[in-house]
Amino acid sequence: MTQTKQKPKITVIGAGRCSDALAQQAEEVGTRIAKAGGILICGGLGGVMEAVARGAQQAGGITIGILPVYESQLANDYIDIPIPTGLGHARNAIVAASGDVVIAIGGEFGTLSELALALKLGKPVIGLKTWALPDESGIMKAQTAEEAVSMAFKVLEEKK
Amino acid sequence: MTQTKQKPKITVIGAGRCSDALAQQAEEVGTRIAKAGGILICGGLGGVMEAVARGAQQAGGITIGILPVYESQLANDYIDIPIPTGLGHARNAIVAASGDVVIAIGGEFGTLSELALALKLGKPVIGLKTWALPDESGIMKAQTAEEAVSMAFKVLEEKK
Amino acid sequence: MTQTKQKPKITVIGAGRCSDALAQQAEEVGTRIAKAGGILICGGLGGVMEAVARGAQQAGGITIGILPVYESQLANDYIDIPIPTGLGHARNAIVAASGDVVIAIGGEFGTLSELALALKLGKPVIGLKTWALPDESGIMKAQTAEEAVSMAFKVLEEKK
Amino acid sequence: MTQTKQKPKITVIGAGRCSDALAQQAEEVGTRIAKAGGILICGGLGGVMEAVARGAQQAGGITIGILPVYESQLANDYIDIPIPTGLGHARNAIVAASGDVVIAIGGEFGTLSELALALKLGKPVIGLKTWALPDESGIMKAQTAEEAVSMAFKVLEEKK
Repeated sequence: MTQTKQKPKITVIGAGRCSDALAQQAEEVGTRIAKAGGILICGGLGGVMEAVARGAQQAGGITIGILPVYESQLANDYIDIPIPTGLGHARNAIVAASGDVVIAIGGEFGTLSELALALKLGKPVIGLKTWALPDESGIMKAQTAEEAVSMAFKVLEEKK
Repeated sequence: MTQTKQKPKITVIGAGRCSDALAQQAEEVGTRIAKAGGILICGGLGGVMEAVARGAQQAGGITIGILPVYESQLANDYIDIPIPTGLGHARNAIVAASGDVVIAIGGEFGTLSELALALKLGKPVIGLKTWALPDESGIMKAQTAEEAVSMAFKVLEEKK
Repeated sequence: MTQTKQKPKITVIGAGRCSDALAQQAEEVGTRIAKAGGILICGGLGGVMEAVARGAQQAGGITIGILPVYESQLANDYIDIPIPTGLGHARNAIVAASGDVVIAIGGEFGTLSELALALKLGKPVIGLKTWALPDESGIMKAQTAEEAVSMAFKVLEEKK
Repeated sequence: MTQTKQKPKITVIGAGRCSDALAQQAEEVGTRIAKAGGILICGGLGGVMEAVARGAQQAGGITIGILPVYESQLANDYIDIPIPTGLGHARNAIVAASGDVVIAIGGEFGTLSELALALKLGKPVIGLKTWALPDESGIMKAQTAEEAVSMAFKVLEEKK
């Protein structure tokens, strides 16, 4: 078994378009995931997905993009390994299922569906400026990129 | 082209377990869909899905259940045509996509994912005692089974 | 339980383009499925899928088209109930899984994938002028539309 | 853009059970893919999938397993990055779609479906002791592991 297998996988979900401020936070989340030794999984397109992948890749991490289309070249420039599923929105279920933990940043309806699927699958979910669901949904709220990533790794530590 | 093709398709989403009160409302929704000439599409399992199918089938309507598993026999007893997808939770995207309009009744995380996917796909969504999303999400709120179905058919009429 | 639920479901697979001769056979297969009381399931597009649906619908049967796209209007004119999956080629797995028995008519690579998935799922498969796989694959070869449909219903009878 | 992004992705398909002789060839295919700088993508389970991943991982390559289930721990021991899709057999379409080129080794019905989907998607396909399809299907036949991998990289070179 190699070091890669032992690396935790962090799924980050968020919309294909986002404000500069949110992109900055997403990028920092990516940087921190990579620095902490995590593999980043995301939807592979623009907005939050692009910002988080940029941060992770530039910090030396591996980035995986699970695309709704068949064209790998539609992945953003910071995806190391595109998985072109051709599944349309059904790929959201795979994005949610692929991480050991899920961080939601901002987001629109697609993100909400991934967030719901992650909760359905029993994944720990951390929210950073994302959909406000009732408290009993179990989403852990983070205020900053730093806090979100630190919560994610703490949850993974506890699961061991 | 037959009459069947011209029939509107109504997707009803809701959890696999529900209270008797909610089941009663779901059953009435099913009855009214069938009486108004609609084809019912749902996830094919228990709870809200079973109640709405029972109502629709007993009122003479056609009921379709899009199952997460490969075993058709796991459909509830009121599904005329099971579609056993074997897709797991990714089948939620098909449930959301298959209706001309979507009615959400109660529901847990699976329902939330279908609701989000339906909104993402631009489907009109009517909510009956379901997840409270922000107003700008565009869910139309109904108070009763009668109102939910009447809103659904009104929306379909306007889309023509 | 209604009569519809008791109706056997026959999946017919075949290419989106085909010769007039093959279309004629596909149409006869559809006609015979409907007359024998079966529900037709197919991929919902052109060629063999359109011909078989035309035959089935015009003989009074119910026709279901499991589409690779989200646009129901891309179904051929003889589909009563389109299921717009948006799954791309992954929808082939659902086409294969949805029938109690599968009839393959002619076909190209898409048909071959459905045929293989049907065999993988343990479905009885009848071939009419389709891919020539080794004998041990278990495909039952039919020479005419009449023979194909009669084999299909015989297999269903034996499974009871 | 990192080096990882520029690495070619090779999908290897084959059955979950296989003879020792075939496993040995699959392992050599994996070793050669990794030594040539490719990323290995496979279905992540046993048999050919396990042997090829073992070869690739032990030669220092990255191995990705696209699983039909939700449980990452069901991946074989040589998968660096499991993608647990939960899609059942529909995951075969993703396995086929994810590689820049596909090598088929031996195989049963699942492999045949992946092979057909790869051809449908227009992927170059190399066959090593796999299904004998008609010549016009375009499968390039290799006699040895060495030849299969060398053909794969030659095709990728020509596509540039």
